[in-house]
This record gives sequence, structure tokens and C-alpha cells, in this order.
Amino acid sequence: MAKILILGAGVMGTAITMPMTYNGHAVHLVGTHLDGDIIKEIHENRIHPRLEVQINETVIPHTYDRLGEALEGVDLVVLGVNSHGIDWAAEMLGPRLSSHTPVVLLTKGLAGDDQNLYILPDVLRKGLPSHSRNQAQVAAIGGPSIASELAALRHTCVVLAGSDQALLEEIAGLLRTPYYHIWTSTDLIGVEVCVALKNLYALAVGLVQGWLEKEGEADNGAAMHNTASAIFAQTLWEIGYLVEYLGGQRSSVYTLPGAGDLYATCQSGRNSRMGRLVGLGMSYREAKAKYMPEDTVEGAELALAIGPTIETLIDQEELDVAAVPLLRTVIDIV
Amino acid sequence: MAKILILGAGVMGTAITMPMTYNGHAVHLVGTHLDGDIIKEIHENRIHPRLEVQINETVIPHTYDRLGEALEGVDLVVLGVNSHGIDWAAEMLGPRLSSHTPVVLLTKGLAGDDQNLYILPDVLRKGLPSHSRNQAQVAAIGGPSIASELAALRHTCVVLAGSDQALLEEIAGLLRTPYYHIWTSTDLIGVEVCVALKNLYALAVGLVQGWLEKEGEADNGAAMHNTASAIFAQTLWEIGYLVEYLGGQRSSVYTLPGAGDLYATCQSGRNSRMGRLVGLGMSYREAKAKYMPEDTVEGAELALAIGPTIETLIDQEELDVAAVPLLRTVIDIV
Repeated sequence: MAKILILGAGVMGTAITMPMTYNGHAVHLVGTHLDGDIIKEIHENRIHPRLEVQINETVIPHTYDRLGEALEGVDLVVLGVNSHGIDWAAEMLGPRLSSHTPVVLLTKGLAGDDQNLYILPDVLRKGLPSHSRNQAQVAAIGGPSIASELAALRHTCVVLAGSDQALLEEIAGLLRTPYYHIWTSTDLIGVEVCVALKNLYALAVGLVQGWLEKEGEADNGAAMHNTASAIFAQTLWEIGYLVEYLGGQRSSVYTLPGAGDLYATCQSGRNSRMGRLVGLGMSYREAKAKYMPEDTVEGAELALAIGPTIETLIDQEELDVAAVPLLRTVIDIV
Repeated sequence: MAKILILGAGVMGTAITMPMTYNGHAVHLVGTHLDGDIIKEIHENRIHPRLEVQINETVIPHTYDRLGEALEGVDLVVLGVNSHGIDWAAEMLGPRLSSHTPVVLLTKGLAGDDQNLYILPDVLRKGLPSHSRNQAQVAAIGGPSIASELAALRHTCVVLAGSDQALLEEIAGLLRTPYYHIWTSTDLIGVEVCVALKNLYALAVGLVQGWLEKEGEADNGAAMHNTASAIFAQTLWEIGYLVEYLGGQRSSVYTLPGAGDLYATCQSGRNSRMGRLVGLGMSYREAKAKYMPEDTVEGAELALAIGPTIETLIDQEELDVAAVPLLRTVIDIV
């Protein structure tokens, strides 16, 4: 039995308590400043309001002011904050965390500073105090994992990526259950780039659904699966190009973190829904304001976060403009 | 303007007349012995009964007894027969066709003789008279191309694969239109293995839909996209392994012929439908007899065609048993 602390009580941070409690670990779920209502609800009713499942009695919910206390004697920290919360998490954890305690990111995203692109494990590392920056053991989970399905104990297959294979096996051993299947990979860059970009590209695949609804089925009942599938294939190609550019391995694109996660994201979720609205003819701004004002559309946020950096890299001929037409189209839309 | 002959008046053989007539070619559509009713219907009403679209007046329908006549002066032959019809097509074309006339296969499949697996262009070649066997110019089209959508002029992206790049460009130039987008590839093996196997694996992805219907949504509304996506990713991995085993390039798996075509096949079509029925708990035999007696389930036919060869190759340790668990599962089911 291990002591595991999860920082961030969103849907994914909470869903992953299921395999942890299944394996008998002591689980501490620490909400961010955005999660106050969630932590209160779990305290009072053991229900996560968005996941709509009963949270195991052994999960101890905390507000973030109690983070230091909750971290005492912890074996593993899991980050379930959103992509904007990585700097905050580094600031919160940095002074309180031993550099021997591994940190696993559930958070997906990429950062850009108009010159370079960064994977989130590197952003986290950069935010840590200088003495632990290089020692910190940072890993990440990627793959098709819709939180509500994991919370409902549906079979879910993911990849745990990091640099130390022995440590990865150890962490995977803590989390694996008969329904939560975990592979390991030392291609942290490849996995992180895949799982971040799939949200952005799911917007493009989702567009086709909107076009179809606007144009209607053809007289013979034909839909537009050919078009959506071509965009799906182009997506994998472009992600592969970007993974290699950033130093990752193309093979990650063609397994769970890339093709698998993209497939799940195209079948369901907010990025596809936004794509559909744009496909119907709305601007991104209009669709967001009118239909999804409360929703975080991760793909769109990523487009905003990395758009300027992508353009700079293309201008500097670091990126081949002909290799990423779909990426640029989505960035332009957003 | 070219003279193009299509042998086989099924949905795909007929749908491809659309870009051909768009480009002003003289198009001759020759039915097989299975297509008598279709050819009659096109003659009388210019309608293909299954595609449910109007066939351009310039397409000349023929019964196969007029093949020799129709072949006179032809610039390109396109094969739209089903996978069982390749030997027949070789027999019909062999004595009548100049070895300079390129043949493009729309037919998908693999053949096995209990010792080796063969792509269909090689099966066709083997059936030709010895003097033209090696000279024959055989190419193939792969990629997400649901026939009813192409017939409705929906945007469709495919790959034309063969060995002679200059010839591929020439043929692609004859067929390309503003809605029929054609890339070329010299990885004929990779493309052919992908487009054949995707039908078989779509059965496995389709299974999940049946499981979901049987088990129902979870209390929190969760479906099983995680599970389907994991099978999708595993499929690409196994197809990649088999493509490399047969001498093709893994990169074809991750573009239109592999990921793209698999995506389209999983969204629609007979293979997914059969998968769903099996997922609901029926045996393949029962599902076929009860719900799809008239349908050709290409993935199941392929499983029957190559199943014994796959087992032999595993017994001989030519194929790694650990690399193709999903393939074997589908073969077992069928």
C-alpha cells in the first residue's frame, strides 16, 4: 500500500482515484482554488458533481491550503490540474516535495514562448526550485482515457511515459487494475506531444460533422466519412512530423497516445463539439460565447498557446510550412 | 481524353465512373456474371440499384461477354471485382489485354495458400499468361473511400500505389478531380496490406459497440470509447507489424490507407455491423445467417481466407504470436 496524493480534483484527477483505491492505496485528493465546490461536495456526499459517480470512502479530500500536511510521507504525486495550472502546481509543490517523490502528470498541453515549444513535464520542472529541478522524477500518462469511463470502471488502456524504465514499472504496478491497463514508454516527448495535439486536431475532424449537418446527407444517403477520415489521417501525419521535430519518436503517434487517443477524442468530447459548431458556419468566438461559455475547449486553448510560436518557427524555417497545413488552419480558426 | 474500362459494376467500380466522366473520359463499365441485373438497370434507367445515384449518360454499360470488344483501344483498366473474382479477372483479361495497358485494382484482400500470404496485385499477375506476367503494370487504389460518398461527389482522399512513379502520376492525372484527391505511393505492399486488413480489424472495433449495447451505459452515462480506441490503436500496431513482415513500409499504416481507411470503416459499413452483432453475444455464424445473409462481410471473408496461413506462419515462428493477438481473436471468432 502506498500513499498517493492527487493535486487537482477535476474529472481526470478524480477518476484515477478508482484504480488507486481498488489497489488499496491511501489516496488524498487535493482540490485547487478552482475545485472548492467539488471538494465540498465530495466531503458531504462522496459524489463528484461532474463525474457523477460515488467516490470511494477511503479517498480523503482536501482543500489546497492543507497541501503541505497531505504531502507528508507521500510515495507518489499525480497532477490533475489544467494546463494553465502547471506553474501554480510547481510553485505549490516545489518547496514541499522531496525530489525523490515521483510526479505523474495527467495534464495535457504544450507551452510556447514565441521561440520554442515545451512539453508540460519540462514546464513543471522549470518551475521547481533549482535544487530539485534536475533530480525531479517526472512522468506522464497518455492514451484514450475519457474520465467518466475510467470512473465507471470501463476498460481503459494508457501509456505511462518517463525516462526511468524501472521507476515507470514501479508506478505502473501501483496503478494497474483488471480494467486499467498500463503500458510504459520512455518516449516522454512523443507521448506528451501526441496527447496535447490530439485535442487541437479533434476540432478539425469535428468540423466535418458540422459541414455534413449544414449540407445534409446526399440524395443517396451518403455522409462524409471519407472527408473526416482523410482529416484523421492527415492529423496523424502532422503529429508525427511535430513529434519528430521536438525529438520524440514517431512510433508513439501510431499507438495509444496518438491514434488511440485521437480516436476517443473524435468520438466524444468538447473539442469535437466545438469543431461541429465551427463546421456549421459559426466563428470560434461566436460558438464559444453562445454554446460553450462555461466549457474549457482544450484544443482551442492549445491553439492560442502555441499559435504564435508555430508561426515564428515557420517564419524561421524551423518548421516546414507544407508539413502542417491542418495545424495552421485550426490555429487560424481559433 | 482516355478510354477507361472498369471490370466489375459493384458499388466501388461504379462510383469511380464519377471522377472519370467529370474528366471527360470515355468510360466502359463491364459487369461480371454477378452484375447482370445492375448492368440491365443502368441500361434501362441509368441508376445503380445499390449506389442509388444517376450514372452519367456517357458511361457505356456492358455485359462481360462483350469484354473483348470493349477492351479495344483502352488506355486503362480498373478492376472492381470482389476478392474472389481476381483469378476470374486474370483469366478474362489475360488473353485480351496488351501488357502495356495499366491495370488499377479497387479490389481489397489478401490471399493465403497455407504457406504464404499474397497481395492481390500479385494474385492477378500470377493469373496472367506467362508472356505478360512480368510486364503487366499493376497498381491499386487505397484509402478511405466509401463508394456511396464518392458517388455523391463528397471529398475523398486516396492513395494510388504501384511501382512506377511516372505511370502513377499519369494515371492519377486521369482520375483526379476537385473532389477526388489522389496521392501516389510506391509502397504497393504496404497499401494493399492496410486496405485489406482494415476490414478484418473493423470487426474488432465494432465488437465494442455490441458490448456497450449489451452492458448498457454506466450510471454516469459513460460509454466505451476508451475500449474501442485501445482496440483501434492495437489494430494499427498489428497492421504495421504485418506490413513490415510482408515487405511494405510502416509509414503507409499511419496515413490514408491505414489509419484513414480504418477510421472510415469503423464509422460505417458491414464489417462494423457484424462486429456489433458478435459483441451482442451472437456467434459469427448465427449473426450472418440471421441478420446479414445477403451481405458480403469482407473482413470475415478475409479471416477465412488467411486464417490457416496465419496459423501456419505462427507455428513456424515466421510470425511472432505476441504481435498479432487481435488478428487471431478475430480469426477465431469467424
